[in-house]
Amino acid sequence: MIVVMQKDATEDQISHMIERVEGLGLKAHVIRGTERTVIAAIGEKREEDKSALESGMGVSEVVPILAPYKVASRELKPEPTKVSVGSFTMGAGTLGVVAGPCSVENEEQLMSTARVVKKAGATALRGGAFKPRTSPYSFQGLKEEGLKLLAAAREETGLAVVTEVLSTDDVDLVASYADVLQIGARNMQNYRLLEAVGNISNPVILKRGPSAAMDELLLAAEYILNEGNPNVILCERGIRTFESHTRFTLPLASVTYLHNKTHLPVMIDPSHGTGHAYMVADMAAAAVAVGADALMIEVHPNPEVALSDGYQSLNFQQFSDLMTRCYKIASAIDVTMEKGELVV
Amino acid sequence: MIVVMQKDATEDQISHMIERVEGLGLKAHVIRGTERTVIAAIGEKREEDKSALESGMGVSEVVPILAPYKVASRELKPEPTKVSVGSFTMGAGTLGVVAGPCSVENEEQLMSTARVVKKAGATALRGGAFKPRTSPYSFQGLKEEGLKLLAAAREETGLAVVTEVLSTDDVDLVASYADVLQIGARNMQNYRLLEAVGNISNPVILKRGPSAAMDELLLAAEYILNEGNPNVILCERGIRTFESHTRFTLPLASVTYLHNKTHLPVMIDPSHGTGHAYMVADMAAAAVAVGADALMIEVHPNPEVALSDGYQSLNFQQFSDLMTRCYKIASAIDVTMEKGELVV
Amino acid sequence: MIVVMQKDATEDQISHMIERVEGLGLKAHVIRGTERTVIAAIGEKREEDKSALESGMGVSEVVPILAPYKVASRELKPEPTKVSVGSFTMGAGTLGVVAGPCSVENEEQLMSTARVVKKAGATALRGGAFKPRTSPYSFQGLKEEGLKLLAAAREETGLAVVTEVLSTDDVDLVASYADVLQIGARNMQNYRLLEAVGNISNPVILKRGPSAAMDELLLAAEYILNEGNPNVILCERGIRTFESHTRFTLPLASVTYLHNKTHLPVMIDPSHGTGHAYMVADMAAAAVAVGADALMIEVHPNPEVALSDGYQSLNFQQFSDLMTRCYKIASAIDVTMEKGELVV
Amino acid sequence: MIVVMQKDATEDQISHMIERVEGLGLKAHVIRGTERTVIAAIGEKREEDKSALESGMGVSEVVPILAPYKVASRELKPEPTKVSVGSFTMGAGTLGVVAGPCSVENEEQLMSTARVVKKAGATALRGGAFKPRTSPYSFQGLKEEGLKLLAAAREETGLAVVTEVLSTDDVDLVASYADVLQIGARNMQNYRLLEAVGNISNPVILKRGPSAAMDELLLAAEYILNEGNPNVILCERGIRTFESHTRFTLPLASVTYLHNKTHLPVMIDPSHGTGHAYMVADMAAAAVAVGADALMIEVHPNPEVALSDGYQSLNFQQFSDLMTRCYKIASAIDVTMEKGELVV
Repeated sequence: MIVVMQKDATEDQISHMIERVEGLGLKAHVIRGTERTVIAAIGEKREEDKSALESGMGVSEVVPILAPYKVASRELKPEPTKVSVGSFTMGAGTLGVVAGPCSVENEEQLMSTARVVKKAGATALRGGAFKPRTSPYSFQGLKEEGLKLLAAAREETGLAVVTEVLSTDDVDLVASYADVLQIGARNMQNYRLLEAVGNISNPVILKRGPSAAMDELLLAAEYILNEGNPNVILCERGIRTFESHTRFTLPLASVTYLHNKTHLPVMIDPSHGTGHAYMVADMAAAAVAVGADALMIEVHPNPEVALSDGYQSLNFQQFSDLMTRCYKIASAIDVTMEKGELVV
Repeated sequence: MIVVMQKDATEDQISHMIERVEGLGLKAHVIRGTERTVIAAIGEKREEDKSALESGMGVSEVVPILAPYKVASRELKPEPTKVSVGSFTMGAGTLGVVAGPCSVENEEQLMSTARVVKKAGATALRGGAFKPRTSPYSFQGLKEEGLKLLAAAREETGLAVVTEVLSTDDVDLVASYADVLQIGARNMQNYRLLEAVGNISNPVILKRGPSAAMDELLLAAEYILNEGNPNVILCERGIRTFESHTRFTLPLASVTYLHNKTHLPVMIDPSHGTGHAYMVADMAAAAVAVGADALMIEVHPNPEVALSDGYQSLNFQQFSDLMTRCYKIASAIDVTMEKGELVV
Repeated sequence: MIVVMQKDATEDQISHMIERVEGLGLKAHVIRGTERTVIAAIGEKREEDKSALESGMGVSEVVPILAPYKVASRELKPEPTKVSVGSFTMGAGTLGVVAGPCSVENEEQLMSTARVVKKAGATALRGGAFKPRTSPYSFQGLKEEGLKLLAAAREETGLAVVTEVLSTDDVDLVASYADVLQIGARNMQNYRLLEAVGNISNPVILKRGPSAAMDELLLAAEYILNEGNPNVILCERGIRTFESHTRFTLPLASVTYLHNKTHLPVMIDPSHGTGHAYMVADMAAAAVAVGADALMIEVHPNPEVALSDGYQSLNFQQFSDLMTRCYKIASAIDVTMEKGELVV
Repeated sequence: MIVVMQKDATEDQISHMIERVEGLGLKAHVIRGTERTVIAAIGEKREEDKSALESGMGVSEVVPILAPYKVASRELKPEPTKVSVGSFTMGAGTLGVVAGPCSVENEEQLMSTARVVKKAGATALRGGAFKPRTSPYSFQGLKEEGLKLLAAAREETGLAVVTEVLSTDDVDLVASYADVLQIGARNMQNYRLLEAVGNISNPVILKRGPSAAMDELLLAAEYILNEGNPNVILCERGIRTFESHTRFTLPLASVTYLHNKTHLPVMIDPSHGTGHAYMVADMAAAAVAVGADALMIEVHPNPEVALSDGYQSLNFQQFSDLMTRCYKIASAIDVTMEKGELVV
């Protein structure tokens, strides 16, 4: 249920209603909108609870949340959520761009990439330190050493740092270095890990699993939100279909659907979503046009020798061209985006 | 094989080489590019044929076509194909927009739609006269009566007319009324029908089947091209996947892939591709950004009472807004598009 | 609607009700069950029609058909349909086996295969004379010459003959040679072709398209049934999914679903359904266990040199082993199946 | 690489070769077959290592492992792996049956089910104590209390106990109560969890993710095997496709494929694989016919009131009928299976 407070409800009235919600054995999530405050009351539905809350001072109305997800729902919070951390801002008309290598390989690779993506207009640096690899025999990432390099790159460039966390055991460590934590597609339904990142304050990028239905994605987000972390960014990175000319099929209609159902911002990852460097710029441009709140792009100084995902990584020139094209489209449809410089 | 003629090859030399190709029992398709003429020699590969042709006067080189499709291949014809018929132009930097109702229902419905889509900037009118319906008990279209209404709408508005043909028996009839014939997704591999439209001169829109691989689509186009009709437009209208929040999943990376492999223009149909009116404008905008050569949009005076596909049809206002947004994006990336007027 | 006649309704009463149904502008399909006769009244639903029919002499009740397909529905005809033609019998506890080469290539190939599959227990011979090929440059079949060879093989072995028809133009020709006509997966929604085979009396095998939903398959069958041909056999031959270790994914639960919804018999094609010869016997055995009414198996004297589909064709020994295994399973669960001899 | 020892190689020679493998910085996995011992040498491939090992005393040959998975590969170990724990035996011609409720709900529910499935011929009891639920607001399982009930049911019935583990933190706890640990489909690529169950000795059932490719499944198994736990059972439980008349699409050809590529036993779960109780027996029968090594079946005293997955659970009578049918098929094709008694 959503307890919608009157516009002029006092802080005391709000606090009092939170107590009443909790007194009924329900969990209270408070959303302070620009217009009014609402309190989500999460738990088993009972008709008598609704009546009990409706009579509260300062309460405008009590309405059910029809979606299976509650805190993530646009019914609860009609205004879009904007996530800001360091230089990285996304949502509500501002486009964030996260760029960098699939894996952090060494200082030279990471620092050169960081400088270029910053110059070209990116607002955050991505780089994998803990890598989930299909084979146990593949390169598993530099781990803490990689995190230190990412922090150093932030120090120099001012870019926010985004990196993946694979295990509940590593959440605190990763959160101590990174600005934004990423939950990979393979872990979208690793519920213990979702709960763990729900208990920190860093924003979380939650990638859609390649066969996840939209409700499954939103309920996975709900696991994080329900623990108290409100800064969840949903990321579409492609689904598994019969198509074999792309690594995954990237459905951009996900942006439209999610904007309709949730206030959370939506990111598009055209690198994983296509699996081919030559397709990335086209799909990034399309993502801007469709209304995505952020992009995630793999960039590498020399994709041919990358330790992972080289075939889908852009080199510096390609990334710069992509940013120029995206900036033109964003400007045409009144989306705010960092204006980068050309990289040669 | 491709017989690439020298830049200064004479007409006599070209004619002579065509004869030699045919003398070897091969089929000759001549493509006259801006730079030079090439002759595709289609048939069973024999090493001795290559040698025999290489020695011809005016021949620059003879190279194999690696793709399974030949005439459709970009190896054979690097320059993009531009299709023009009436007011409808698409390809090579010009965006065509085909709009109109799913089914032609009556004169009032069709004429009012035609006037509005023309005003908003569309360059062709679509409308189904022969309808392929999942159930034998559903409305099957007005048939020839519908074709007559379409021709009348062209008369008044100057829009080119696009309509579907379902059967070899109807090809001549439909071609006598319509400018462009459409092969629907269900008939993408109806090879006798493909051959029949390969034997007329009207341009053909070939819709991708919902589970067709790209090679299957291009080989279906090859059935048409191989009969002698060079004006084939490929249309991506969504594939069948596990997703249920959209009617189909619309993979815009198809545009990038197809532009890489073929010279044929590529159209996007966001109406069928999403199945929901509220998603159509977003995906149309994305299609423009990704580089599509044309759009196909379902428009109806009153979608709620449409005889077919109402849930995915736009009303006049929604279509006008879509065109305004697409025009802004096209302009930002130097794509030519008809500038429409606002429709209120 | 279904007009259910009383058990003791007379022929006169039945004829009279058919007239009344037609008098209401509805189409009457009569199903004579072992227990009672029912008349399907197909057309637009009107409440007053129901009342008009309920009052008829000999009428037990008038009930709506809830499924979108009517004549195909198990609501209309609870007893399973059994199809018999020549030696080929399938349905209602009897397993039919259709075996033979993908394409008819020549007399020697076809006759040797026919003799062996007959000996091993098959009840019908398959062989493609008109071949739907993905590429216009592939072998398109022997056409009428192939039909003549099939008829000659029937003459010698007594096997029923099954072959595909691709075009409305060929229906009469093919029906004059073959016992059973096959509509291939690519033509499942070629509605003019479905109507054409609805107007002949030969049984029709209707293959499921690789992305067809069950309702789409059943409505395609309805196009045939609605024209008056009651002998439709549904064939599951695999769907298109992300899996790449098989050519298609073969969902055997289709048998259970279809038996629940329709009285029409269900055939399984493990050759196309897997695309690999080494998988065919396992899946054929599973199809028998799940309750399929028939199998379709590709067999070739020498799969390695087959003109089409060699990688999924069994040689004679493999086919004989498959039949032995299927016979054991059929016997264990009381399914009737021809007992073949071992082929060495 | 695989170091294949001679048939008469001594223990000393084997030990010595293990040392040499490890001396090269490679990991040694020893597989003692009935015919001969082989040593898998896992690590980066270097040509000089192969030569170094070939010269060892007692070595027959050194061959590369072509598959990306090594220890799981049939190249390394041609004989099928048989897993036995308590009464539960599966693999190499013996069919194991795991049955029980989706969730452990209470003592009465679990004990009554355990008695019945034991009587009907099951060899292990399943029951979820830690439940991975799509929504954070759904019943999450009885946790340790559920494990205690499972252990009590084993005490009384002698059935082996199978239950899921969700988190590395719970592995030791779950392993202390259960005989066999299950990794659910959502965690198939939770690599830290795979490593954790690789470090215990209990057999592990690894469920295929709904969009996992076969190589991804086998490489996930490899994560477990590579840590030293050789008892991995692969479980096919259905994939996500466009089909909506079943919850998932259950591809039985997976059994054939996996038996071809790996020595690990393969289980089929028709309950999740179809999502409908009325389909479970048919698909279980088919799984036996195709050659599966084990079945996993959801059974509940009263499916209509189950706390989870009731629509796909069988009641006692239905389960008993399923077992009777499976026993008949198993017997017909010489598969060993516990003969149960009829349950009324």
